[in-house]
Amino acid sequence: MGKNLTSRSEDYSKWYNELVVKADLAENSGVRGSMVIKPYGYAIWERMQGELDRMFKETGHKNAYFPLFIPKSYFSKEASHVDGFAKECAVVTHYRLKNAEDGSGIVVDPDAKLEEELIVRPTSETIIWDTYRRWIQSYRDLPILVNQWANVVRWEMRTRLFLRTAEFLWQEGHTAHATKEEAIAEAEQMMHVYAEFAEIFMAVPVVKGTKTESERFAGALETYCIEALMQDGKALQAGTSHFLGQNFAKAFDVQFTSKEGKLEYVWATSWGVSTRLMGALIMTHSDDNGLILPPSLAPDQVVIVPIYKGEEQLAAVSEVAHKLQADLRAAGVRVLYDDRDTHRPGWKFSEYELKGVPVRIAIGPKDMENGTVEIARRDIFKKEIIANDQVVSKVTGLLEEIQNGLYDRAVAYRSEHTTAVNSYEEFKEVLNGKGGFISAHWDGTAETEERIKQETKATIRCIPLDAKEEAGSCIYSGKPSARRVLFAKAY
Amino acid sequence: MGKNLTSRSEDYSKWYNELVVKADLAENSGVRGSMVIKPYGYAIWERMQGELDRMFKETGHKNAYFPLFIPKSYFSKEASHVDGFAKECAVVTHYRLKNAEDGSGIVVDPDAKLEEELIVRPTSETIIWDTYRRWIQSYRDLPILVNQWANVVRWEMRTRLFLRTAEFLWQEGHTAHATKEEAIAEAEQMMHVYAEFAEIFMAVPVVKGTKTESERFAGALETYCIEALMQDGKALQAGTSHFLGQNFAKAFDVQFTSKEGKLEYVWATSWGVSTRLMGALIMTHSDDNGLILPPSLAPDQVVIVPIYKGEEQLAAVSEVAHKLQADLRAAGVRVLYDDRDTHRPGWKFSEYELKGVPVRIAIGPKDMENGTVEIARRDIFKKEIIANDQVVSKVTGLLEEIQNGLYDRAVAYRSEHTTAVNSYEEFKEVLNGKGGFISAHWDGTAETEERIKQETKATIRCIPLDAKEEAGSCIYSGKPSARRVLFAKAY
Repeated sequence: MGKNLTSRSEDYSKWYNELVVKADLAENSGVRGSMVIKPYGYAIWERMQGELDRMFKETGHKNAYFPLFIPKSYFSKEASHVDGFAKECAVVTHYRLKNAEDGSGIVVDPDAKLEEELIVRPTSETIIWDTYRRWIQSYRDLPILVNQWANVVRWEMRTRLFLRTAEFLWQEGHTAHATKEEAIAEAEQMMHVYAEFAEIFMAVPVVKGTKTESERFAGALETYCIEALMQDGKALQAGTSHFLGQNFAKAFDVQFTSKEGKLEYVWATSWGVSTRLMGALIMTHSDDNGLILPPSLAPDQVVIVPIYKGEEQLAAVSEVAHKLQADLRAAGVRVLYDDRDTHRPGWKFSEYELKGVPVRIAIGPKDMENGTVEIARRDIFKKEIIANDQVVSKVTGLLEEIQNGLYDRAVAYRSEHTTAVNSYEEFKEVLNGKGGFISAHWDGTAETEERIKQETKATIRCIPLDAKEEAGSCIYSGKPSARRVLFAKAY
Repeated sequence: MGKNLTSRSEDYSKWYNELVVKADLAENSGVRGSMVIKPYGYAIWERMQGELDRMFKETGHKNAYFPLFIPKSYFSKEASHVDGFAKECAVVTHYRLKNAEDGSGIVVDPDAKLEEELIVRPTSETIIWDTYRRWIQSYRDLPILVNQWANVVRWEMRTRLFLRTAEFLWQEGHTAHATKEEAIAEAEQMMHVYAEFAEIFMAVPVVKGTKTESERFAGALETYCIEALMQDGKALQAGTSHFLGQNFAKAFDVQFTSKEGKLEYVWATSWGVSTRLMGALIMTHSDDNGLILPPSLAPDQVVIVPIYKGEEQLAAVSEVAHKLQADLRAAGVRVLYDDRDTHRPGWKFSEYELKGVPVRIAIGPKDMENGTVEIARRDIFKKEIIANDQVVSKVTGLLEEIQNGLYDRAVAYRSEHTTAVNSYEEFKEVLNGKGGFISAHWDGTAETEERIKQETKATIRCIPLDAKEEAGSCIYSGKPSARRVLFAKAY
């Protein structure tokens, strides 16, 4: 295809890295571990943001913005949080540079040392709960349902575009409630919102569940998650929602007067998804020819490519193309007409395949004679010649078909790659063979979980929400177990 | 009015600070100089973002995202840029914390010192042009029309909410062009886009012009700006757009092969507006009772307040209120129905005045009898009783009237506070009297500009785009001048 893309079977990881760069989604920058999100990649992220933001608002949340910097001491206030987050992070120690005395350039001014170091936020629970203390006095001030779109920094040693970068973009919801029940309901609700977003817009099926204690967010009493399965059989955690109990309220002394006049600590949740979703999107649908985008999130759902010789033919084709573009736009379809004379049709076909535009319309001289166009869908490479006056109904139907088809294909893949096993031998065989989710009994101890992880690199992705009560015995220890959990190797 | 707001005449600066906090727009955080933008303030900013983003896209720009951190050495590459930006800034020197050996908490790990310090971006020209070098080879790759929505940090010593904060939110456009003419046209276009946004959506009249050489952006050959006038007679720079010549292309070695096959340096622009616009919005329209918002940017354009005794009356009023809310929403109006039983109507009236909701509808028992409602507009406190079935047309008309009225009022204020003077005595008299813009002849030298600034604190806000050719003599030096420029004290 002329794209020089490594095939997935040859080296999945290499394929991914190449695809992200070649499809103009993102690239590495001159700053270690920090990526540049290119316009095409950012346009997909913007569409994700748009849908999520709408869903957050429909469930009563409002956006706000909290400081990028967090005083070091804030992290020490919540005991388990500090271990999870205050270690590998960017530390601001000075606030001024100056010209070097020897003229060699600019240097940090030693006189401008901060009294207390500032941490570039790896997550904002601490600074937000420090703020909520000022916002909450009475039950009348509750609930607080706030979300923030922001950049965060975690000093990861091994980075990969979108999947693990030192800086990434995300949203973090932080809510405050009068009761435990309400906070739990909120955390659960947001897991469902995330699942709905992933399935309906990303066409990525997810398993909803809870994390084991050792996989929980630092400071949470319960972590709800959605887990997706990538084409290489590895799982990817696509979103988490945490019930934080009263931990942060106690750490930051946030109390409210209840209706009954009693002083009580506030109940908290936090929840987030990040640019990591881009990785999930790419690794769920794409193929050896490039990106495949679900129409709901594709910046351009349709591209029209003219095939012509000379100005005159281009003018004639363009007239038809502009009419189609206008009609499709009127029907709510995002259409690009690429009439650049700097590139040939073949190059364009290849380019839009690489970039995953769901539907391509080509119009050539023969089509002009016949009053037709050629319509090609990216997901299964099917082509058809249809009459001009059927383009709108055809395309709108196709977009829906593609959206559903991608989801169904991903569900089918996941079904084929979800295996129930009953022994550790079988577990390892599946894990190192076809991979995917492995449904197995576990004795519920962190010790067994850790040993399996050490021996096989598989982790418990979640205890599925719909896990049936089923008496069994742990594949590792043989001890009794009441339900199966999902294991997998994971991103 | 029970708001305990300092009056503007008493202390304008205090009035502003109190209003920002009491109207729930923003507040100081535990981090020096960094603000928390509260949900109500952020909702206004989101509306600004939405309109601006649409305007940027309509003029062909796409969004992207570049790293927060910039290696120190990047700043040294463009000589004038480094002096302007690489001084008062947040410097990341370490990437890890650890538990103190004496158990006293967490400390910076001295082993995790970065080889090269990272600067938290004060503006992104350097990191972006380092990226553009990889994106640009040929004239086919041009123009690049990219915008970024981001947070930036400048270590300001004296901070004020929205107007000057260590961290603020903004957008920064960075474009690359094949020719000088195209780059200048882009920089000018964006000044016009900003002016249109300010006048149409913010209802803030602005003067378009260019900055003097000493007021230019560090690294620019020309800085275009829009200048607004606040109620206290001080000017506020509301947006800038820079023609950067080939400075950054040369500093970062960004060359392209022209159509003619020659290797040339790329031409650049950059342009930005920030959360500072919130300050301009507040200080243009608001009064001693609180915020006044132009309907275009008001999160809630209308609030409906029920007046009732007991559940039964509330139910009856609510029925009417919900119907009105639905009808207004269908007409595209943003309406809040505040039926909270935790606060009394008087409290709500005062609250929404403080928050600047343009139109208030009150429905009480008498209205229920008569099939009427009371409509009050925030800007001039006019009240009217009108029939239920006229609410939609009345309100939509009112919103337009208010939007235009606010703009006209601001234009009138500016006209009254723009004074042409012909001597330095007169200049100082006006400056220290009624304030505002002062239109005066200037000899064009940085020396005179600096002396006037030292002696009076007034700066040249801009050389207005529409300044007429007019022979005159500099008010300070008496030397010849070809046109008047605008002076003012400024935020």
